[in-house]
Parts: sequence; C-alpha cells; structure tokens
Amino acid sequence: MVKIRRFLHQHPELSFQEKNTAKYIADYYKKIGVPVQEQVGGNGVVARVEGALPGKTVALRADFDALPIQDEKEVEYRSTVPGVMHACGHDGHTASLLVLGKTLHEMRETLSGTVILIHQHAEEYAPGGAKSMIEAGCLEGVDVIFGTHLWATEPLGKVLHRKGPIMAAADRFEIVIKGSGGHGAQPHKTKDSIVIGAQIIAELQQIVSRRVNPIEPAVVTVGSFIADNAFNVIADSAKLIGTVRTFNPEVRDFIEEEIEQILKGACLSGRCDYEYVYERGYPAVVNHPEETDLFIQSADTVDEVHTVEEIEMQMGGEDFAFYLEHVKGTFFFTGAKPDNVETAYPHHHPKFDLNEKALLIAAKSLASATLHYQDKHSVSEAVPK
Amino acid sequence: MVKIRRFLHQHPELSFQEKNTAKYIADYYKKIGVPVQEQVGGNGVVARVEGALPGKTVALRADFDALPIQDEKEVEYRSTVPGVMHACGHDGHTASLLVLGKTLHEMRETLSGTVILIHQHAEEYAPGGAKSMIEAGCLEGVDVIFGTHLWATEPLGKVLHRKGPIMAAADRFEIVIKGSGGHGAQPHKTKDSIVIGAQIIAELQQIVSRRVNPIEPAVVTVGSFIADNAFNVIADSAKLIGTVRTFNPEVRDFIEEEIEQILKGACLSGRCDYEYVYERGYPAVVNHPEETDLFIQSADTVDEVHTVEEIEMQMGGEDFAFYLEHVKGTFFFTGAKPDNVETAYPHHHPKFDLNEKALLIAAKSLASATLHYQDKHSVSEAVPK
Amino acid sequence: MVKIRRFLHQHPELSFQEKNTAKYIADYYKKIGVPVQEQVGGNGVVARVEGALPGKTVALRADFDALPIQDEKEVEYRSTVPGVMHACGHDGHTASLLVLGKTLHEMRETLSGTVILIHQHAEEYAPGGAKSMIEAGCLEGVDVIFGTHLWATEPLGKVLHRKGPIMAAADRFEIVIKGSGGHGAQPHKTKDSIVIGAQIIAELQQIVSRRVNPIEPAVVTVGSFIADNAFNVIADSAKLIGTVRTFNPEVRDFIEEEIEQILKGACLSGRCDYEYVYERGYPAVVNHPEETDLFIQSADTVDEVHTVEEIEMQMGGEDFAFYLEHVKGTFFFTGAKPDNVETAYPHHHPKFDLNEKALLIAAKSLASATLHYQDKHSVSEAVPK
Amino acid sequence: MVKIRRFLHQHPELSFQEKNTAKYIADYYKKIGVPVQEQVGGNGVVARVEGALPGKTVALRADFDALPIQDEKEVEYRSTVPGVMHACGHDGHTASLLVLGKTLHEMRETLSGTVILIHQHAEEYAPGGAKSMIEAGCLEGVDVIFGTHLWATEPLGKVLHRKGPIMAAADRFEIVIKGSGGHGAQPHKTKDSIVIGAQIIAELQQIVSRRVNPIEPAVVTVGSFIADNAFNVIADSAKLIGTVRTFNPEVRDFIEEEIEQILKGACLSGRCDYEYVYERGYPAVVNHPEETDLFIQSADTVDEVHTVEEIEMQMGGEDFAFYLEHVKGTFFFTGAKPDNVETAYPHHHPKFDLNEKALLIAAKSLASATLHYQDKHSVSEAVPK
Repeated sequence: MVKIRRFLHQHPELSFQEKNTAKYIADYYKKIGVPVQEQVGGNGVVARVEGALPGKTVALRADFDALPIQDEKEVEYRSTVPGVMHACGHDGHTASLLVLGKTLHEMRETLSGTVILIHQHAEEYAPGGAKSMIEAGCLEGVDVIFGTHLWATEPLGKVLHRKGPIMAAADRFEIVIKGSGGHGAQPHKTKDSIVIGAQIIAELQQIVSRRVNPIEPAVVTVGSFIADNAFNVIADSAKLIGTVRTFNPEVRDFIEEEIEQILKGACLSGRCDYEYVYERGYPAVVNHPEETDLFIQSADTVDEVHTVEEIEMQMGGEDFAFYLEHVKGTFFFTGAKPDNVETAYPHHHPKFDLNEKALLIAAKSLASATLHYQDKHSVSEAVPK
Repeated sequence: MVKIRRFLHQHPELSFQEKNTAKYIADYYKKIGVPVQEQVGGNGVVARVEGALPGKTVALRADFDALPIQDEKEVEYRSTVPGVMHACGHDGHTASLLVLGKTLHEMRETLSGTVILIHQHAEEYAPGGAKSMIEAGCLEGVDVIFGTHLWATEPLGKVLHRKGPIMAAADRFEIVIKGSGGHGAQPHKTKDSIVIGAQIIAELQQIVSRRVNPIEPAVVTVGSFIADNAFNVIADSAKLIGTVRTFNPEVRDFIEEEIEQILKGACLSGRCDYEYVYERGYPAVVNHPEETDLFIQSADTVDEVHTVEEIEMQMGGEDFAFYLEHVKGTFFFTGAKPDNVETAYPHHHPKFDLNEKALLIAAKSLASATLHYQDKHSVSEAVPK
Repeated sequence: MVKIRRFLHQHPELSFQEKNTAKYIADYYKKIGVPVQEQVGGNGVVARVEGALPGKTVALRADFDALPIQDEKEVEYRSTVPGVMHACGHDGHTASLLVLGKTLHEMRETLSGTVILIHQHAEEYAPGGAKSMIEAGCLEGVDVIFGTHLWATEPLGKVLHRKGPIMAAADRFEIVIKGSGGHGAQPHKTKDSIVIGAQIIAELQQIVSRRVNPIEPAVVTVGSFIADNAFNVIADSAKLIGTVRTFNPEVRDFIEEEIEQILKGACLSGRCDYEYVYERGYPAVVNHPEETDLFIQSADTVDEVHTVEEIEMQMGGEDFAFYLEHVKGTFFFTGAKPDNVETAYPHHHPKFDLNEKALLIAAKSLASATLHYQDKHSVSEAVPK
Repeated sequence: MVKIRRFLHQHPELSFQEKNTAKYIADYYKKIGVPVQEQVGGNGVVARVEGALPGKTVALRADFDALPIQDEKEVEYRSTVPGVMHACGHDGHTASLLVLGKTLHEMRETLSGTVILIHQHAEEYAPGGAKSMIEAGCLEGVDVIFGTHLWATEPLGKVLHRKGPIMAAADRFEIVIKGSGGHGAQPHKTKDSIVIGAQIIAELQQIVSRRVNPIEPAVVTVGSFIADNAFNVIADSAKLIGTVRTFNPEVRDFIEEEIEQILKGACLSGRCDYEYVYERGYPAVVNHPEETDLFIQSADTVDEVHTVEEIEMQMGGEDFAFYLEHVKGTFFFTGAKPDNVETAYPHHHPKFDLNEKALLIAAKSLASATLHYQDKHSVSEAVPK
C-alpha cells in the first residue's frame, strides 16, 4: 500500500485530468486478473470481485484526484508535478482500496457475494465524478456502499461515524451588484455599488443569525469582494462570490431564496441592479442509520481500531453524497494523524501528509464492514447466483 | 425695554396659549394710541404706524411665545410659571419691538411711509403662527419685512446677516417597522423588526453621505427608536421618529423620497411592512439679496453695532420663512451674549439668559433698516397716499 | 387528576407567590399520610414515599407556578385570577405527580426503594425554585431524577426524549449605550447613541453567523431597543435588552465575551461609553445518556404511549437543568395536544390548553421509569435499609 | 491660439513626462524674445514680461500635462499618442497663455509692472508641479496670481468666480484589514476580513452624515474593495482604497482621524488588525476675497464675457491651491462649451472637447484682471524700479 501510495503521491493529477492514474489503477487489476471497466463516466474505473458463494453486492469507493497546490513537504515521495499535489489523501484511499481489492480477489472462494471497487475520479471539483459514474451504471445491482476518508487531524486507530447528515451540502454563489459609477468626489451622481455590496454582506449575516432554525447548522460565506478601481472613482459594479453550507435540503432551498431576497431589498433601497447565480454543488452526505450501526459493530472487530466514535457534523462537502442518494450505506473517517506531531497540517495544506499506517486500517475497516454485511444478509436474504 | 422684557419673562406662555401676552401687547399700543388689530390668525397682534409722508410699507416682526422648560436661573425676573420659560428670547424680541413701535409712532410726522408691527404668536411649535397671520392678511400692502433673533452665543454689538438660505427647513418623520414577533429563542419563526430597524438606521446615513450633493447641507436624524418588550421576546414592531433639515427644496423632496426608498428596500429584504409619515415643518428661511444688502448698509450706521458679519447657514428652523415666501426682506441675528461669561448658555437651555443691552441694538437695527428702505424708495417709487 | 388540575387552573399563582398552591399540595399528602416537608427553599414542597423493600431513591419533579397572562379560554375551569394563568401546563404537572404519589404510596409494600416527590415553585422566573430547593437539600440521597413537560404541540400518546442537551441555557443581557445628546439639527456636536446602537445590533448578528461553530446552536436576540426622545433631539443614550440561548457552556461563555467585544469596538469607533450586564439564567438541560436509554425502554412499556421519539434540541429554558447538574436523570416531553384541533395554541398563549388525557400518560411514564430504574438496580446495587 | 492648441492636442504628454511640451513653450518665448526660465521645479517653464512703467508683479498660470485616456474624438487634431489625451483642456490653457504672453510683451512699453507667465507641468497627478515650481522660486516677487480653467460644461461667454473655497482638498487613503483566513465552511476558526471591511464601509458613512458639521461639504468615498479569493475560502485580508474631499482644513484633519477611529473600533470588535495610510493630495483652492472682487469687476469689462457669476464649490481638486497659500489671487472658470451640443462631454471623458473660442475669452479675462490690478495699485503703491 505504502509503495502504491507514494508512487501516486509523486504523480498527482488534477480533477478530470487523471488519465495516468486511471490507467495505473486499471492495469493493477488487469495484472491480477480482476475484471475491470474503464472510462466509467469519465476517468472512473470499476473493478468487480465475484465471490464463489451467493450473497449481497457491496460497493467500496475510493477517489483518486489531486489538488492545484504546490507540495512543500520535504520527503522523498514529494510530488514531482509543479503546482499539483495529493493534499487531501486520495492517493491513500486509492492504494488502500487497490490492495483490499487484491486481497478480496485472493479470498474470492470464501466470499459470499460480490464486491464492486469504485475508483472515482474528480471528487475535488464540482460537478464531481460520482454523479457521472452513477449515471454510467456503477451502482447497478449494488446493495450497499461504504466509503472512508483518511483524516489526518484524528489519531491513528480511531474511526469516526455518524448517522444521518455527516458532511454538508456545499454550494457556490456569485453576485454582481450593478450600480452606476462616477467620480469619487460626486457620489450623488452615482449609485455606489461598494456601499450597497457592503450593506449586503452585513444583511447576509441575518440569514444564519435570524432566519434559519438555530438547530440547523448553516454557513453563508462571502469569500471574494471584488471592486477594483482607481481611488478617486466610484465603483460601477462589485462582485461577491461565496459558499453556502447546509445539511437540511429545506434549509438549502431557503438560503438560496433568502440571499436573493436580501439582494432584491438592498438593490431596491440603493436603486441598483444585480445578477445572482446559485450553483448547487454536492448535496449533504447523509448516512443510513442501519448501515451505520452495522459499520460501528464491524469496526469494533478490527484489531488496529482502538476507538469507534461519533464525529460532529462536518461543514465540508463530499460527492459520496450522490451514492447514498441511490443506495444505502455509510461514509466514515479513518484517523490518520502522522506520528510524532502535536498538530497535523490540515487537509489542503501545502505541507499536508498522512500517517501511512492508516491505509491498512482503512482497508480493514472497509473489509470488515463488507464481510459483516454479507454475513448478516447471507442466510435470510441471499439469492442463489 | 428691560422692564417690559422682565415682566414678560416672569409671565411666559406656551405656543398657541399666549392670551395674556397678546393682551399685554395690544394694551400697550392702545394706551399710546397706535391702531392695533387683535386675534390675527390666532393670538397674533398687528399694530400700524402711519407716517405723515408718503412712502413704502415696512413690516417688522417679533414673536412672543415661550417654551415648556423649567427656568433654573437665579434672577429676580425668573419665570413665575412652573415648567414654562422664555428660553429663546422672544420676550426680548417683543419688548424691543414694542418700544420701537412707540418711538416710530412718536416720530410719525417725519416718517415717509407706514410701519406694520407684527407681534407673532407660536413660533416654537409647528404649524406656527406666521402662516395663519399671513392668511389673516398681516402682509397686505407690505413692501418689505425685517426680523431679527437675539442670539446669546454671539457677542454684543455684532449683527449677522446672510443672503439666500440662512435657516433650514425642519421636517418630522415617523416610521413604524411592522415585523412579526415571537419568542426570543426562535428567531426563524419571526420577522425581527429591531434588526430591520437597525439596518434602516445604518442605511439612512447613506442619504447624506452618498445621495445628496455634498455642497447641499442636509441632516437626517433619528431621535427615537422605540421597541419596548420583554428581554426574551422578538419585537413585533419598532418605531423610529426623526427630523430632516435642508435648505434646498429639491433636496427636501429628494430626502423625503429616499427615506421611503430605503424603507421599501429594507422591508423587502426582511419581509416586513412599514408605515411612513413625513410631516413638513417650516420651510427654509431664504433672505432676499437686495434687501439683505440694504440691511447690511443700514446696520453699519447704528452706533452700537461694531461688527456686521456674514453668518453660516443655521440648521435650526424659523417660521419667518413664510413671510419671505410672500414679500421681500431679510432675517438677521443680533448678538446678545451676556456680560462676563465665557460661554453663554445656549437657547432652549434651562439657564438661558440674554444680554438686555441687545434689545436696544435689535430695535435700532430694525429701525435703521426701515428708514434706509423708506428713504431709498421715497423719491423714485413712493406713491402719494 | 383532571379535578385537581382544573382546581389549580382556576386558582393560579405567580412565581414565588404560590402560597396557596403549596398548601394545597402539602395538604393532599398529609391527608393520605405521606410525609411531607414544606417551605423547602421557598414555596417548595417535598413528599417522600418509602418502599418496603430496599432499593434506589428516585426523585420525580413537577413545577407549580403560573404566568402573568390573562386567560382568554372559554371553559368552565378558566382562571379566576385576573391576569394570572396556568398557560404552560404546570397545573397538569402537579395534578399528575400528586396522583402518582398517592398511587406509589398505596403500593409501597412492593416498592423497592424510595420515591421523592419534588413539587417545585417558580420555574418560570429566574433564578427559579430548583436552585434553592437543591440548596435546601431536596436531592439528598437521591440516585436519579426524572421530570417531564406536558407539550401541547405534540400529539397525545407520544413521548419525546433526547440524550445530552435537550433545552437551552437562557440568559439575559442589558446594554446601555452612553453617547452625548443634543439638537437633532447638529449631529456633529453629539455622539448619536441610536446610530451606535443600530450598528451594534448589526454586528451582534456576526456572533451566530461567523463566530460560533455552525454546529453549535446559539441565539442572540435583542428584544428591546429603547431611546425615547423628541423627534428633533439626538439621543443621549439607548438601552438594548436581550437574551442568549446556548447548549454548550463554552459557547455560552464565548458569547458573553463576544457581545462585550462588539460593544467595546462600536463604542470606540463612535466615541461612546457603555454599560453591560449579562445575567445567567438557567443552564442547559443536559440529559444523562444511560438514564435516557433506561427511560426510552421504560416508556415503550406504557400502554398509552404509542410513539417514543427523539426530539430536536429546544431553544427554551428550564430550571430542571440544575437537578441534572447534581444527580443523573433525564427530562422528557409528553405529548398533550388537545383533541380535535389542527394546531394547538402554543405554551404561554392566552388561549393555551392541554389534553387532560396526557396527565395519566405523564404519570405512567414517570412511574415506569421509576420502577424500571429500581428494578434494574435492585439486585446488584441495592443496599439494605 | 487655435493652431497652438491643436498642435499640443495632437502631441499630449503625461504628467511629469512633458519634455516636448515644455520645450515647445520655451522655444515660443525665446523666438519672440521673452526671457524664459526652463526646468523650474521639474518641467516647469517661467517667462517674464517686464513693463516699461513701474508697478506690481502679476503671475498668470497655465498647466500643460495630459491624461492617460485614449482619444475617441473623430477630429483632425485628435491625439496622435495612443492612450494619452488632453482630456482636461490644459492644451487650451497653454495656447491661451502663450498668445497672451506674446501680446503683453508687444505692449510692454505701456505696461505698469511685470507679468510672470507660469507654465506648470503635472497638475493632474499628485504631488503636482505647483509645489516644486514654488519651491524653485516661481512666486518670488509676485504680488498676485490669477489662473483659470476652461470649463466645457459651462456656456461660452460665461466666467465663474467664487470667494473663499472654490475647489476641494483631494486626499487618498488606503486601508488593509488583516483578519485571519480559512475554509469557507469554518467561519468560527477565522476572522473574516470581508465582513469587517463591509462593516467599516457602513460606518464610514457616519463621518459625513453625523460627525462633520452639515454646512461643511465633505466626501468620503471608497473606490476599491479588493479581497479576491476562491469562493470557498474566508478572506485573510481586504484592501479598501478611497478618497476624501473637503474645503475646511479642520474638517480635513478631523476626517483623517475619524477614519482611523472607525478602523480601530471595527478591528477591535472583530479582533482584526489594520494598516492605514492617508496621503494628502492638493489642499483646497481658497480664493482671496479682495482679488476676487477685482477679478469680477475686470471680467465685466471684457466684451466677449456676457455673464459673470458665482459658481458652487467644486469637489474636484487643483494644485493652484498651493499658489494661493503663498500669494493673494483668485482662480476662476471660463465657460467653454462646444457649439451645437446639448450637453458637453465632461472633462476626462474620451470624447471631451473644448470650444476653442473660449481660449480668447480666457486670455482676455486674465489680461483684464492683470491690467485692472496693476492700474489699481499703480498710483498709491507702485515703487520705482
């Protein structure tokens, strides 16, 4: 696993451009005789391990794209591609699943059911790879899906689960305030789009503070405010770009509307116009309760797992969400904090790294969930193949 | 003059309630044989001094109402009426004009024209007495009007003039934000009128800072914000009350509209309703240029006047404004700072007082303007009576 | 139960003034021979039912104060006290516990342990009765406590539980902005406390929207904004009063600080001063997990309970919180929606009413929890009396 | 004049780069035998016409730099330099003064005193050329200075004057809000510089609306708000750049301080830091009253001038301000609206043009003021040379 992971780490590819990584994955399975399907909904690769015994079909998913970040670590396996880096651990996900796939293939004579190994491209960049892989059929016949994220800020040996919403819906919005510019000394002849933009920023705070139910987590962030003019000019227009995070689909819809309501009001008061685009990113990752319970029990049986714990809702997004809209399953976190550090560099940081021992724990946790699931359902529900 | 002023000071009467003061004034004129008209447009009193020679008709105006303020001065002539006080100097205006009227009456044989002595009630309280006295005919046949305000914060011996706008239009507005109240712990079930009210206060600042021409003086003040509820309640409604001050009628109209534009926008953004009442008070006092020039020249001839100076525009209001909408004329300030004080108490202060020597200066300045005006127009324009 | 409840409903007493209600409760127990302690920490009443068998000591709590609300229902048992009403169901709590106490007393020969019946005064009004009753010793020897709130907006037959935080900490704050007043036409000579107050309202929104972790529910409400002046005056000072709701004690501390940080900044920017008082009300009600699990199991055995469900965190407060800081236990809700209504009037509404059938369900649920708890602990842990 | 103006119009040079224009001017004077000094405080050129008779020394000033604007007019004399254009009329100023200089030189035998022709570089770009030319001695021995600006938005034949402040002080400020960035989904781990920046924009409005005397014109404009990040990032810092316009030096100082006061407060409330640079541009142009009166009288004698009128205070800046800090004088506007247009393109517009007939009017107005001044002072004050 470590060898594979390091190779991938040195050869990262950006979302939707992961040709070589996809080929690497496919070649790996071909070499060991596992049937593999390439170009699934893009660069996706799907391998299939058929057990000799009848049983359920379990999908396991690992993503394999990297990020537009310059690797600043000083390690031998540092990225060789300038400005591109596996700064989120997808290299580890991939290595872990490949070796797990190989192992399951080797034990296929005793396997009660099928395991679908979904190697997904483009998790980092909307619209993501999950959606198109599903459309291409990767979930056909699948009974349940499990997936994990290596998590560098949690200790090795800990796995973290949560029933219901675990990761947020992550949307993007873009607003253009269209005032009427002019000379900085003559505000009365203009409609100052910076003043109206600032007012909108202030009012947007009310959405989370007053309009959304306090027990529903939500974030409205404006990350960019751009009105770049000479100092003595009044801004003709101002652009605001931001993100919305929610768990509840109704809250998501509501915030999309409330932003526009605030825009309408502010532009009415300031006699400006606006453009507003709200782009839905990934929906919330909502784990199924029964499958999560099964996972919790299965995780307890993994030797290397010393702690199985509920995690707080995470405001980050994941396109694993799409799989769980189609089949039951659960997504969990696998602690991967590097040894001998007080605080790990966070994901997406130029110095981010993983504890490579976590790769085995991730693989074993996925395997344990797979086998427990197939066991549980083998007697009562399995159908002869 | 001092005797009269002190008597009036001891017996102040509130706006529209000045029965005794009006009678005092009328009796004064009756006693000396000056024809006097009472109950002019309310408690107004108008006396008429006809000169023996033909000439122009000059009106001179003094107001005589007091204020709902408790006199806190420790002087013999302190107010005898609890909670009512001549805290703006109208007692002085009246005393000065009465004695001037008597003097003009005594010199009527050499007077070229007529002098109308307008003793006006209710200057302090909109809609004021000027409007109704004009409607009652006090300006009929009048060619020009002069008026002055004793000004305790300017030194004795100084008179202050200004062409064009000298005092502001003073309006009142009242806004009710109608949200939807509820429990303080459940903001998402309410429309918080305090939050929207606060937003409106912030946005109202833009009117003066961005929307009105910077060279046009304007003030938008919210003096009251009232939403008085239990601490754990969300306010159903909030009331804002304030004043607008302007000199330019277009700016006045514009601000009335802009306040509503801001209300509309803020209530749209917060899904609230509003009520909005804008009440016009006195318009701006706008002095006529030629008459002001004449006044300046005439003031220079008064012995007790050592300085004749332009005054800045005053944001306070005066219903002398109405007279100047009907006839030409000018309104000026007469320095009346008490002796031996560093800083005078401002007008409307419970310890306000005047320098009584200023009464004579005010009278002489009015007289000088009157005579200069009649002189100037006697040859070329006077018509035989 | 219904008879008692209706009697109490007709004779409501305000928090800390519940003399007659306390006497009624004590008399009830005295009459049936249950030992009772009066004046416990104020108007509190504590009865004690000793089982014949050894076992654990279970406390059950019901509150009995009413609210300053005029009863607008048209029913026979309507309040007879003008302006005072049992608008939150504490009459039902009391009736339910009294009859349950009587029943337990009757079955004391088979009871393994002790039951403490805590009739608490003054739940509605901080500092509440719980704190002083605990200080007076009502929890001495108690192993576990259960309490319930009849909940008119949830259907009959449903009981609602939650592990961990179930009701919010409810605090009160009061802010005075001290500017420097003046004439409405001269803002530059003043420090406008309304403008600064409005700015503070806007900035307070940032606490929940930007500063508190989005997964931590929190509310900051300003319920009162009071600056009541003449329209043409600039406000010398403005008073803001509000409430803060939180579940996490760290968030509670943090918000108390952040409010002051915002005050400091706004007053620095506007050259004003401030006064700030933050009064802690009840802490969050935090249910103990093991006792909540026991309750869930016990509730399932009550015939009249058809649904046992997790409830969302409630932003309202309850001084039951104090008991749970001292002993283990759980607080739950008992559905009490009146028959034949679409939507029940909410608690604290002038037309609020309960479904009286819920009183029996509440009593049985408390009884079931008590007996399950005593059963569970009777063998392994019970000590001989 | 027209020929010279058109030549200069075709060959514009940017501020501080006007080598060829300066040479053109100097050559003109050399050719006709007028003593000329080059490189005065940079590219400045000063010519000197000595009258044969004793008298006062009058300076006349014309600026000669162009602007970084692409000429979009379709005329023969259009700019030949891409992206550079005489879009403010300084070409006209120069042509007018050159021909006037020649004329005065030709009539030097009857001239009572001296005329200094100040051809100033770099008026458009702070710190401007006036300051360094004064430091280089161009005002030595000068008794009075006159200058004019051709004004395309005012009709031909009109000249506009004003006593006291006529053009504003124009300053530049730059603010950096230094928060602490992070992931857009985790606002509580950051200090959001966009939110604080927006708050500052709102609060800056209070300076003009509440803190500056309403009768003192002032503008605070933020022309740039720059925080350009990914949509899902919270901004680490935000930059605000803007301008302040004032007439009264005390107001200028006050606003510089108030901006910082607001920064301090906002950053304290949001736990951010800031950088603040306030760069003084040109001070206000403040005309001397007596010299302005003289100019008014002199302008009335110019045949082509049909209207002599007071102009409103202009919020734009001019480095003529520096000359008037050293010697008495006045700056006026000369109407130069093109024939046959309803509305002229404003100064600094890519299609800006002048009415070339105004060049003669400007020259005659300057000449008339010069001669009136020298006449007035010739008898009583002139000293023998």
